Amino acid sequence: MPVSLAVTLGDPAGIGPEIVASAVRTLLASDATVRPILVGPQNLVEPLAQELGPRVGCEPQAAFTGVLGQASAASGRAALAALMAAIRLAQTGQATALVTAPISKEALAMAGSHDLGHTTILERELAHGPVSMAFFSDRLRVALVTAHMPLVQVFQELKPTRIVAVATLLHAALTRWLKLPQPRLALAGLNPHAGEGGLMGDDEARWLLPAVQLAQAAGLNLTGPYAADSLFRRAYDGEFEGVVSLYHDQGLIAVKMLGLGNAVHVTLGLSVPRTSPDHGTAFALAGRGTAKPDAMLAALRAGVELSRG
Amino acid sequence: MPVSLAVTLGDPAGIGPEIVASAVRTLLASDATVRPILVGPQNLVEPLAQELGPRVGCEPQAAFTGVLGQASAASGRAALAALMAAIRLAQTGQATALVTAPISKEALAMAGSHDLGHTTILERELAHGPVSMAFFSDRLRVALVTAHMPLVQVFQELKPTRIVAVATLLHAALTRWLKLPQPRLALAGLNPHAGEGGLMGDDEARWLLPAVQLAQAAGLNLTGPYAADSLFRRAYDGEFEGVVSLYHDQGLIAVKMLGLGNAVHVTLGLSVPRTSPDHGTAFALAGRGTAKPDAMLAALRAGVELSRG
Repeated sequence: MPVSLAVTLGDPAGIGPEIVASAVRTLLASDATVRPILVGPQNLVEPLAQELGPRVGCEPQAAFTGVLGQASAASGRAALAALMAAIRLAQTGQATALVTAPISKEALAMAGSHDLGHTTILERELAHGPVSMAFFSDRLRVALVTAHMPLVQVFQELKPTRIVAVATLLHAALTRWLKLPQPRLALAGLNPHAGEGGLMGDDEARWLLPAVQLAQAAGLNLTGPYAADSLFRRAYDGEFEGVVSLYHDQGLIAVKMLGLGNAVHVTLGLSVPRTSPDHGTAFALAGRGTAKPDAMLAALRAGVELSRG
Repeated sequence: MPVSLAVTLGDPAGIGPEIVASAVRTLLASDATVRPILVGPQNLVEPLAQELGPRVGCEPQAAFTGVLGQASAASGRAALAALMAAIRLAQTGQATALVTAPISKEALAMAGSHDLGHTTILERELAHGPVSMAFFSDRLRVALVTAHMPLVQVFQELKPTRIVAVATLLHAALTRWLKLPQPRLALAGLNPHAGEGGLMGDDEARWLLPAVQLAQAAGLNLTGPYAADSLFRRAYDGEFEGVVSLYHDQGLIAVKMLGLGNAVHVTLGLSVPRTSPDHGTAFALAGRGTAKPDAMLAALRAGVELSRG
C-alpha cells in the first residue's frame, strides 16, 4: 500500500500552515512515492496543494477568516475541523498515518471544545484501548505512563497494569513499525537512584518492580526500574531500544535535551500511527516566515517510516 | 595565590586510586602551575606522588589493607580519613579547592559512619550556611533545591526561602568563580508546562513565583518558573547561565544526557570550591585499568578553574 499521510494545518492562526508548506515541499523532493493529503481551511489548503503539485491531495474544510497570530474561536474551530477530517481519512483507510500541526488549547476552549488537545480527541476516535504519548528520535524512544497532570497526582496513577499497558504499546510500536525484534525496554524509577533499595522511597518496590515482573510474564523484554537520571543516556547510547517513563517531565527533559526537531511526538495505541512536531502553535511567530520547519519535517518523515512498518 | 588542589583517592577499593593517577598525570602535562596534593592511604599515595614527580604533594593516611573491588569497614575508614585530611588542608588554607574521588555509602556504614556521603560531611565541616549540589558543564549549570529524598517529600521542601538560598549560592558561584557578571538564572517548574496557569498544579503559584519575586527583590537575576522539559535545553543553548532545579532527577536527567564526564559535580556553599566526578566507586571495575578517568579529569580541571576565580 502506498504511503498516504493525512497532514493537518493545525491552528491556522499559528505557524502550522507555513511549516506544513515548507516541510511538505522538502519531503516531496526527497521521497518519490509518498502522497500527502493536506487537511485544513479551504482558502489555505487549496492554493497550497496546487502550488505543491499533483502528488499532493487536499481535503478542504470551511474557510478561515480569523486573525493571524491570535487564538480565537474561529482558529479553534478550524483546527478541530481539520483534525476530525483527518481522522475520517484514517478511519476510511485513505490515510496510512496522521501528521498533525500544532493546535492551541486556548483556541479549542474558545471554540467550545472541552478537549485539552489532540490526544484526548484521537483517543476517543481512533483507539480501542489505552493510548500513550511517546517521543521517538533516532537513538532514544520514550513512552509516558502519565502525561498532563500535576506531579503530585502521578503517585496515584502508577498502577502496575497501566505501566504494563504502556510497555505493551511501546513494544508493539517498535516491533510493528520499526521492525525491531524483541526490543529491550527499560522502566525508569520514580525516586532518586530508583529509591536506592528503599532508602529514598518505596514506590519502586511497591509498584515498579511488580510491573516489570508482570510485563516479563507477558513476554515483554522489560527490565528495571533503573535510576532515571542516567537511564535516558544509557538508552541513547544503545543499551535499550525504548524507555517507559513515569511522568511528563521525566521523559521530556531527556527528549528535549536532544534539541528541537530531533524528536517526534508519536501517539501509541491508535489504529494508525500519528506523529506531530514537539512544539506549539508559536502564535507570536506566525506569518513571518521565520518559523523553523525542522520538527514538522521530522514528524512527516516519521509518519512515512511508521506507515511502512 | 597558586592553585593547590587537595585530591582524595576516595574509597581505595574502588576505581578512585587508578582514575586519580591517570587524571592527575594528564592534568600536570597540560597545566604548568597547578599543585595537586594527593590524600589517601600511605601505601597508595606515597608511591603515586613519587611517580608523578616533585610538583605533586602528598598527605598520607593509615595504610589500606582491604580487598580491591569490595566495600569493607577498612575501605570506608580509609575513605573517611582521606576526606577529613583534605578538609583540614582546606581549613588551613593549604588547598584552594577540594577534588574528591568516589566513596561508598555502604563502606561508610560498615566503618561506623552515619553519613550518607561526601555532602553531609562537607556541610558539617566547611559550610557556614546552606549548601547545594550543583553540576557544571561548559554550557549547562544546574543547582538542586532538593537532592537525596523520596520524590513525594520534595513537595514539602519547596519553601521560597530555600529556593532563594540555592539561587543565591548559584549566583555567588557564577560571579565569583566563573566571573559571570549578573548571571541570568532560571527557576524550573515542578508540574508539566510549569502548571500551565494552574491547570496542572498550583505549586508554581504557591511557592515558585513567590520565590522568584523574593530573589529579584534581593537583586538576583532569577526568572521563571519555566516549563522544566524545555528549560535545560534553553539554558544549554545560551538563554540562561544557570538553572535552579527543584529535585534530583529533574536536574540530573538533563545533566547526564550530556554524557559521562561532561559535567562535574560541584558543592556550593563551602568555604572552598569542591568538585567530584559524576559517577560512583564502580567496585566491579577496580584494578582492571579499564575505568575511564575522563570525569575525574573534568573534576580536576573544574577545581583549577574555580580556584582561579
